Amino acid sequence: MTDWLPSLITATPAEGYDLAVRLARMTVKMTQADPEVRERLRVQYAQDPDALIAISQAVATHFAAVAAANGYWRPS
Amino acid sequence: MTDWLPSLITATPAEGYDLAVRLARMTVKMTQADPEVRERLRVQYAQDPDALIAISQAVATHFAAVAAANGYWRPS
Amino acid sequence: MTDWLPSLITATPAEGYDLAVRLARMTVKMTQADPEVRERLRVQYAQDPDALIAISQAVATHFAAVAAANGYWRPS
Amino acid sequence: MTDWLPSLITATPAEGYDLAVRLARMTVKMTQADPEVRERLRVQYAQDPDALIAISQAVATHFAAVAAANGYWRPS
Amino acid sequence: MTDWLPSLITATPAEGYDLAVRLARMTVKMTQADPEVRERLRVQYAQDPDALIAISQAVATHFAAVAAANGYWRPS
Amino acid sequence: MTDWLPSLITATPAEGYDLAVRLARMTVKMTQADPEVRERLRVQYAQDPDALIAISQAVATHFAAVAAANGYWRPS
Repeated sequence: MTDWLPSLITATPAEGYDLAVRLARMTVKMTQADPEVRERLRVQYAQDPDALIAISQAVATHFAAVAAANGYWRPS
Repeated sequence: MTDWLPSLITATPAEGYDLAVRLARMTVKMTQADPEVRERLRVQYAQDPDALIAISQAVATHFAAVAAANGYWRPS
Repeated sequence: MTDWLPSLITATPAEGYDLAVRLARMTVKMTQADPEVRERLRVQYAQDPDALIAISQAVATHFAAVAAANGYWRPS
Repeated sequence: MTDWLPSLITATPAEGYDLAVRLARMTVKMTQADPEVRERLRVQYAQDPDALIAISQAVATHFAAVAAANGYWRPS
Repeated sequence: MTDWLPSLITATPAEGYDLAVRLARMTVKMTQADPEVRERLRVQYAQDPDALIAISQAVATHFAAVAAANGYWRPS
Repeated sequence: MTDWLPSLITATPAEGYDLAVRLARMTVKMTQADPEVRERLRVQYAQDPDALIAISQAVATHFAAVAAANGYWRPS
């Protein structure tokens, strides 16, 4: 697998958030390698409030780490 | 998408909390892009104690990061 | 809304804990604005061990941030 | 209520863990004030693996904060 | 109870992980003191993916604190 | 058991993420030692959106610790 995660450093918080979403999704990809199964499950959880909220929680945990990595993008 | 997240820095803790709520909601928006579906789900989870508490948990995780980003808004 | 969250700084850990409880509840209030619905749900979750434990988790996450904001109320 | 939480500082990690357990339980007490209801629920969740694990998670979050407050009880 | 938790300092990350597992289990022990009940529940949750994952989450939270306590076992 | 966890230090964020996945899985292995049972459960949870999301959450918590251990792989 090419280096899908070369760095945690991003130019902006919005890019940091996108990275956090990718980080959250990568575990699903590593655990369920079949893209067809993942797409079938996606249709399910995209309609399930509890699942959507749980995804938001996983992204929040990753975003906290990415934000810390970037010094919270504080203007130096 | 315009830069929906230019900064984590806010003037006050209350604004920081609002940002944490937006951060928690953005993942739902990115995962379920259809506003009609989101509104239908909203009616569901707004009546479900477990979902409301889980949202509170995701906001808490984001708020911790936003608070750290703002030096906890400690009077300098 | 008046500034419901002027500061994270509290005089004591007990006040910090109360603030963490308020922080956890505010998301519920922002997500379900109807006080009657909230009171009906409160009766439900106050009898549900899983919900009570999940609330404890959300408060714990907020309390960790409030404690850090207050330098853990360490005697200076 | 007397100051149930005068400090986060404890002499040992074991006392810090006890404090984390008290911190996790206090939210339940504040949310469900009736000791008889709490005891009835206790009998329920003390037999429920999911509930026991969720309590462990809430205590873990509090313990992380208490440990940080005490400088991880590192020998100075 | 003898001091079951004299220190968070461990020689290696592997020992730190073992400590995190013990920390996660201790709450269950403190909440359900009957070893026979715990063993009966163990047989249940050891076959339940959701429970196993939730245990992993509680251990992860403890491990993060233990790792911080040990300076992440970085070679000095 | 040979030292399965000699260090938290990794060369790249991608390796750090792999380590976080291993850290999350090790608790399952320690709790359910039977590889056949684990494989049977794997087939189950790899098709279950809620389980996949919960795994992502546990990995996120571990990844945050591994990232902090590695100074977020910031270019020195």
